[in-house]
Amino acid sequence: MKADKFREECGVFGIFGHPEAANLTYLGLYALQHRGQESAGICSSDQKQLHLEKSIGLVADIFNEKRLKRLPGYMAIGHNRYSTAGGSNPKNVQPIVANYSLGQLAIAHNGNLVNAFELRKSLEEEGAIFQSTSDSEVFIHLVAHSKADDLKERIVSALARVNGSYSLLFLTEKKLIAVRDPYGVRPLSLGQVDGAYVVGSETCAFDLIGATYIRDIEPGEMLVIDANGLTSYKSVVTAPRKAFCIFEYIYFARPDSYIFGGHNVNAVRKLFGRQLATENPVDADLIIPVPDSGVPSAIGYSEQSGIPFEFGLIRNHYIGRTFIEPKQSIRHFGVKIKLNPVRELLEGKRVIVVDDSIVRGTTSKKIVKMIREQGGAREVHMKISSPPTVGPCFYGIDTPTRHELIASSHNVEEIRRYTTADTLAYLSMEGLFKNIPDPENFCSACFDNNYPIDFPGQESQLELLF
Amino acid sequence: MKADKFREECGVFGIFGHPEAANLTYLGLYALQHRGQESAGICSSDQKQLHLEKSIGLVADIFNEKRLKRLPGYMAIGHNRYSTAGGSNPKNVQPIVANYSLGQLAIAHNGNLVNAFELRKSLEEEGAIFQSTSDSEVFIHLVAHSKADDLKERIVSALARVNGSYSLLFLTEKKLIAVRDPYGVRPLSLGQVDGAYVVGSETCAFDLIGATYIRDIEPGEMLVIDANGLTSYKSVVTAPRKAFCIFEYIYFARPDSYIFGGHNVNAVRKLFGRQLATENPVDADLIIPVPDSGVPSAIGYSEQSGIPFEFGLIRNHYIGRTFIEPKQSIRHFGVKIKLNPVRELLEGKRVIVVDDSIVRGTTSKKIVKMIREQGGAREVHMKISSPPTVGPCFYGIDTPTRHELIASSHNVEEIRRYTTADTLAYLSMEGLFKNIPDPENFCSACFDNNYPIDFPGQESQLELLF
Amino acid sequence: MKADKFREECGVFGIFGHPEAANLTYLGLYALQHRGQESAGICSSDQKQLHLEKSIGLVADIFNEKRLKRLPGYMAIGHNRYSTAGGSNPKNVQPIVANYSLGQLAIAHNGNLVNAFELRKSLEEEGAIFQSTSDSEVFIHLVAHSKADDLKERIVSALARVNGSYSLLFLTEKKLIAVRDPYGVRPLSLGQVDGAYVVGSETCAFDLIGATYIRDIEPGEMLVIDANGLTSYKSVVTAPRKAFCIFEYIYFARPDSYIFGGHNVNAVRKLFGRQLATENPVDADLIIPVPDSGVPSAIGYSEQSGIPFEFGLIRNHYIGRTFIEPKQSIRHFGVKIKLNPVRELLEGKRVIVVDDSIVRGTTSKKIVKMIREQGGAREVHMKISSPPTVGPCFYGIDTPTRHELIASSHNVEEIRRYTTADTLAYLSMEGLFKNIPDPENFCSACFDNNYPIDFPGQESQLELLF
Amino acid sequence: MKADKFREECGVFGIFGHPEAANLTYLGLYALQHRGQESAGICSSDQKQLHLEKSIGLVADIFNEKRLKRLPGYMAIGHNRYSTAGGSNPKNVQPIVANYSLGQLAIAHNGNLVNAFELRKSLEEEGAIFQSTSDSEVFIHLVAHSKADDLKERIVSALARVNGSYSLLFLTEKKLIAVRDPYGVRPLSLGQVDGAYVVGSETCAFDLIGATYIRDIEPGEMLVIDANGLTSYKSVVTAPRKAFCIFEYIYFARPDSYIFGGHNVNAVRKLFGRQLATENPVDADLIIPVPDSGVPSAIGYSEQSGIPFEFGLIRNHYIGRTFIEPKQSIRHFGVKIKLNPVRELLEGKRVIVVDDSIVRGTTSKKIVKMIREQGGAREVHMKISSPPTVGPCFYGIDTPTRHELIASSHNVEEIRRYTTADTLAYLSMEGLFKNIPDPENFCSACFDNNYPIDFPGQESQLELLF
Repeated sequence: MKADKFREECGVFGIFGHPEAANLTYLGLYALQHRGQESAGICSSDQKQLHLEKSIGLVADIFNEKRLKRLPGYMAIGHNRYSTAGGSNPKNVQPIVANYSLGQLAIAHNGNLVNAFELRKSLEEEGAIFQSTSDSEVFIHLVAHSKADDLKERIVSALARVNGSYSLLFLTEKKLIAVRDPYGVRPLSLGQVDGAYVVGSETCAFDLIGATYIRDIEPGEMLVIDANGLTSYKSVVTAPRKAFCIFEYIYFARPDSYIFGGHNVNAVRKLFGRQLATENPVDADLIIPVPDSGVPSAIGYSEQSGIPFEFGLIRNHYIGRTFIEPKQSIRHFGVKIKLNPVRELLEGKRVIVVDDSIVRGTTSKKIVKMIREQGGAREVHMKISSPPTVGPCFYGIDTPTRHELIASSHNVEEIRRYTTADTLAYLSMEGLFKNIPDPENFCSACFDNNYPIDFPGQESQLELLF
Repeated sequence: MKADKFREECGVFGIFGHPEAANLTYLGLYALQHRGQESAGICSSDQKQLHLEKSIGLVADIFNEKRLKRLPGYMAIGHNRYSTAGGSNPKNVQPIVANYSLGQLAIAHNGNLVNAFELRKSLEEEGAIFQSTSDSEVFIHLVAHSKADDLKERIVSALARVNGSYSLLFLTEKKLIAVRDPYGVRPLSLGQVDGAYVVGSETCAFDLIGATYIRDIEPGEMLVIDANGLTSYKSVVTAPRKAFCIFEYIYFARPDSYIFGGHNVNAVRKLFGRQLATENPVDADLIIPVPDSGVPSAIGYSEQSGIPFEFGLIRNHYIGRTFIEPKQSIRHFGVKIKLNPVRELLEGKRVIVVDDSIVRGTTSKKIVKMIREQGGAREVHMKISSPPTVGPCFYGIDTPTRHELIASSHNVEEIRRYTTADTLAYLSMEGLFKNIPDPENFCSACFDNNYPIDFPGQESQLELLF
Repeated sequence: MKADKFREECGVFGIFGHPEAANLTYLGLYALQHRGQESAGICSSDQKQLHLEKSIGLVADIFNEKRLKRLPGYMAIGHNRYSTAGGSNPKNVQPIVANYSLGQLAIAHNGNLVNAFELRKSLEEEGAIFQSTSDSEVFIHLVAHSKADDLKERIVSALARVNGSYSLLFLTEKKLIAVRDPYGVRPLSLGQVDGAYVVGSETCAFDLIGATYIRDIEPGEMLVIDANGLTSYKSVVTAPRKAFCIFEYIYFARPDSYIFGGHNVNAVRKLFGRQLATENPVDADLIIPVPDSGVPSAIGYSEQSGIPFEFGLIRNHYIGRTFIEPKQSIRHFGVKIKLNPVRELLEGKRVIVVDDSIVRGTTSKKIVKMIREQGGAREVHMKISSPPTVGPCFYGIDTPTRHELIASSHNVEEIRRYTTADTLAYLSMEGLFKNIPDPENFCSACFDNNYPIDFPGQESQLELLF
Repeated sequence: MKADKFREECGVFGIFGHPEAANLTYLGLYALQHRGQESAGICSSDQKQLHLEKSIGLVADIFNEKRLKRLPGYMAIGHNRYSTAGGSNPKNVQPIVANYSLGQLAIAHNGNLVNAFELRKSLEEEGAIFQSTSDSEVFIHLVAHSKADDLKERIVSALARVNGSYSLLFLTEKKLIAVRDPYGVRPLSLGQVDGAYVVGSETCAFDLIGATYIRDIEPGEMLVIDANGLTSYKSVVTAPRKAFCIFEYIYFARPDSYIFGGHNVNAVRKLFGRQLATENPVDADLIIPVPDSGVPSAIGYSEQSGIPFEFGLIRNHYIGRTFIEPKQSIRHFGVKIKLNPVRELLEGKRVIVVDDSIVRGTTSKKIVKMIREQGGAREVHMKISSPPTVGPCFYGIDTPTRHELIASSHNVEEIRRYTTADTLAYLSMEGLFKNIPDPENFCSACFDNNYPIDFPGQESQLELLF
């Protein structure tokens, strides 16, 4: 299921040199809406000053003709932010814009800084005043406090102080600057449309506006795009290894996108499904996905196993922005609000249900129950297209804390018993890595606790933040 | 594709005898959101007076805790209305509530009256004042102008004057009344939860609230539910035949619903797909649906033909309420805003794409082009899981006029050429009827111009309305 | 004090034959804002159809350029409605517009029908459906139910059935019609600007738009203004006497307006003050008004008595629409929220305070206390520029019920004691009538219980409504 | 006329030690609404953290029960901001709250810093990032950048760097700090209610909540109010002289307030009117004020001269927040929107009209014209209760630039001719100073160009800002 279990910190999009910069950024953000539904914003420059429009809400609800007209100029950056369960702080909506000694600076950031707290403290000692609780604001202060003469040098000196993940766009009155952290945790691609350069979190944003994918921005690379064209500065920051996020393949990225070197997400997911079928065969009458994220793996599983694929759970897509479960009710709806089983398909059947992951286990339990009780299935076999999630993410995904992750303290049989499934199987680590390109470049800390970006006292300290 | 080509006039839901009447109506409407996204409303009764809350928007955006609390009482009715492209008249939002000589009366109506214009004129001659342009308001005036003593008789005398389709709920201070037109054009089911009676357009609304399906309200039947329990009055209006809407199976109803005698929609759609494969085999590498409505037929087609099923078009579900295509742009996005092909799957392949119907042909043309150009498919074979749509609907579906329906003036080969597909095949009429239960009870006017509910000068007159 | 004690039912304004009809109506309503602050609306006609914009709020907050542009055409009517303490029903906001057999009809009404309840019942028997709880809606139904051929005759036949007060404007696609009830309870004047005719509750609306006052619409007169110019139909309804509202002079109308035959309100109020000084001399150091309605009488009193006039109570005019007195607080602010004494002026002084009337007595008591305790006055003498208010109004003013009117059950000395004033004096009935032109034409039921418009069981019945 | 010609930068209010801190701050701001109508805000502390609510709009429209409940704690500060003609920047709404190294800090500021631009530049060099264009934000950065250990020392070191006028409130988690600039430009008073301390711009705020006035905060004094009670630090900054704003007496402060050492504003204004009558006698039939600010002077003039006082101009107080003059119209309404003459009083009369000041002269010209043409006056004599305004204010009043001030380039006779008055007289400088207490302590730069707070290139530089 999408946008339920995990919440990524954002999608970014930028464009330089197009008469419809804000319009195309709007469309780019629209295509990246799956990366964040809490809020969105666009900042454009008319070469003299920056213009900003941002709000809580979905891209399509925030922007209209009138508001897009308030964003003049040939360059723009935009940002989608994830949706939180409870309230959300309007101050954290991006892009963030500030006035500093060299003029105006806007920032759009996908990722998470592991030393944000220390940097914030140290900047406050130097007199900095923070407006938001977002770690992205730290970048702006670091640039403002740098003693270097030009912006490029200031950004480089700022990056030298930060630790963590960032696919980052800066906009000034005259320049668009894109940077990807040296680990390459989050994707960031470069494209072109009508002669203008575009950058974006995923290539599906390029497809919508008819842009051509050129290449990924490399880990540690900074692109400066201005009237002189595009200049690449490689390795402005360095890291001992790469740490591409494996969960982009498993869950986050859209199936039609090409990420991390131009590999198609749908294809990788199908391979996970095939591998799962190979590793964990089970006798069954049909295989159904938990829509939408489980679909490609379920199709892969079906192809490999020969067991028929069916759409046995119908998803209600008209959720609106603000579904409120009536509190008064004794019912606890949870997953029922989004999914309903097709009893006709499931009744009396042995059903394999494919999902991308299990976090707390509560949703899986409800799905199993729904398939069995409402759907009438005789057997429910749960197949997960990733290994057990044992560790929280500190690099830009809003996961629960470790002790909330059921797999951090329970083995597969215990989880199976909790979910009440007849059988439960996860994809193996070997199976996972066998099916992704360049496996050595990936971070799999959520599966093996092997955190590539270190920081002192990381867990004890960050535990508090989640 | 859902909610793009056709727009149905609404879903209705009602409940009697439950302490959380408004909450459950809210959930029922939420599950019926696919039947109308323009506006929604709930009217409850606390036995002394009616309480009404309604607005433009999605159910989940309109209602919150506070607003639901303003709807006290043990009985309620609700209504979803379809989404129009441009502006919409807030006066037409239902339920409509009025004060008349017997007290208060609320109405929620799914369907369309073919003699609404004549009735309106005649009521105005009698002194009636109309507040909306909705034909549903006619019911209220007919009831108010009836000389009968009690409400039941007044409704019967009102129904005697109307002609057309109606699945209709009335709420008074003390009663819930449900009626279905004698043709049975639109579905309407009866269920029970916690001892309370519920009525709703589709059974998926019952699933969400844990209600049990009892039976359909029969064509021409009126149910009166009050403190004395449920009383059924059969054949309060009669018709020479039944005229269940075939398009509910093809497109409108949710796959998990059971309609028109308790037949599952997903199962029927799969049969259409199987039949299509049998009637029109073609050599291909993979079969993809136009999501979401083409999915079951595509799976049926795949099962029958043995050609692999793939999810080759990704749908963006975060559309928001108000996506505005930037006018300034020279691009015409159309279907691209909703669908994007997975090139990895399609490139160099012979692709069968399954859709439920073709209306104007413009969308199909864009989909074929998208699969071929963006997706890189070698061949594109279009399969339609219904016969050619040649006639407009006058019974509650907002179809284009006859001359806009491409199949009304072009044969299949001409349509194929227009869409640029390599081949194009529709389901045959025989194939259609072979796969639905009780075929003689269905209206198929949109495929054969055989309109079961007559009225003088129907086409020339109604042509103007659409 | 203005807008606190009484709430009039509305101001009306209409114009025919001006290219800026809606703009001038907006300005006219703005000038009449003192007659109603709850809601406002404008209905214009472009000769083909009516356009309506109305909302809860002040005129200046409701209308902006954009909204006024949605009101095209050369003719328009507008309406201000009074402000209620608690919630207000948006359905009662005027103008009310309806579709009936002859086309469209809008209405704006200042006044109150004493037989509204009976008419409503009888219309409901005939099948009428009511949308609002406003008695003004009755007019529309009466017109719609009339069997006469043209609108003029229908209105005449409708007026024959109603009893009560009405300064009434109708707008159709092509005509503006103005009627004043045969008693002439509320004012209604005719003017001209740039060749266009204007009608309005008070002449201050003409001043703002530069219109010239022509004459009053006569009691029982109907004006029809259309492409053929202005046609007057006198005595379309008749009454045994006139019953101009005396309270328009005392409190409601703006001091700069000329009403009831072109007499200036400020001048009449000053005469009341002079008369009060003559009738009830008292030794004092200064005289202060309760602003704003007490100002002219206080000046008159000062002129007559020679005692200096001072502005000893400062009014806070920035009240906003929705001042909420914090409930948690133990303080009860009441009048303090609006008035504050100037201690420097009052300290140690013998003070005469002039107010226009006393309703419940509670406000007067607080004012006396404020002048004495906060202001430090040695003596507080209260002078009321009208006789004791003993009866409620049934002709368009939202007064309290009889038993809430302190003077209905207490004599002057008892009221004085309640307010804690050192002395209290009211204007005598003789003094009142001596100072108004044509006194025999006035209704003074609120002072003498002599109700000119009879109806069966009026008090016992209407008591319930207030 | 109030709030038309000049716009002051704000009113402030604070309270420490009261269970209803936010409620009383709300009422305090309500009483100070005349000092700023653009926006308002309240920041409270519950001892652990600050809570902030602020918006564009009037105090009574911004705050309701729900919003006040979101402001817990025993201490709070609030701020009213003036209303600008065009758009207004929500970022400039106060209080401003920030996180810095010592915790949280809120600020509410009435006044203007003359070296704000230089301080801003220098702070940006040090790395500061500005969120607003308000000079008040400078205070926060100065405090954040100070190297001193505790807040009190930091504020003192910040004040050492600023130059200009400030009545300033700080709120931290545990303390309320009030400071007044060493010149004492703006008023700031200390009071007490229920044992809690209150501070506010004017004593009318104390009256509303029943607080007792204790004394003014002295120029250069800092009050720290916390759990230890009130501690006064005198002369934390010093200045060569005092510079109380004379315009507070002439126009800004409410007549019922006591300012600058406890002198009543109404009394001073009456003395101005008496002096005006003595200096500039003229033969006339009546004297009228331009309401509301001209009222006390007109009464004083009337008392001194024996010429009768009348309320000859009626003010429309229901302006709403957003009156839009219809652009399409050829009429230019200007002052007509607010004032209307009472023709009955003025016709054929020799009229003296008293206003507090003349800025550009355009409003005065319209008033003279209105009194003569609409009102029918035979002669119009304009009396201004202050000397000619020749210089802009740089200390917290939003005056026009010098060349827009008609008196900076025209003598009295030229101004008279422009306004078309029959005679025009201003109060003399001697007459002004003779009638205020401690005249040597006042700034009269607007009348004599004698600016007490110097700064390099002040006019050439600041000219640009206005």
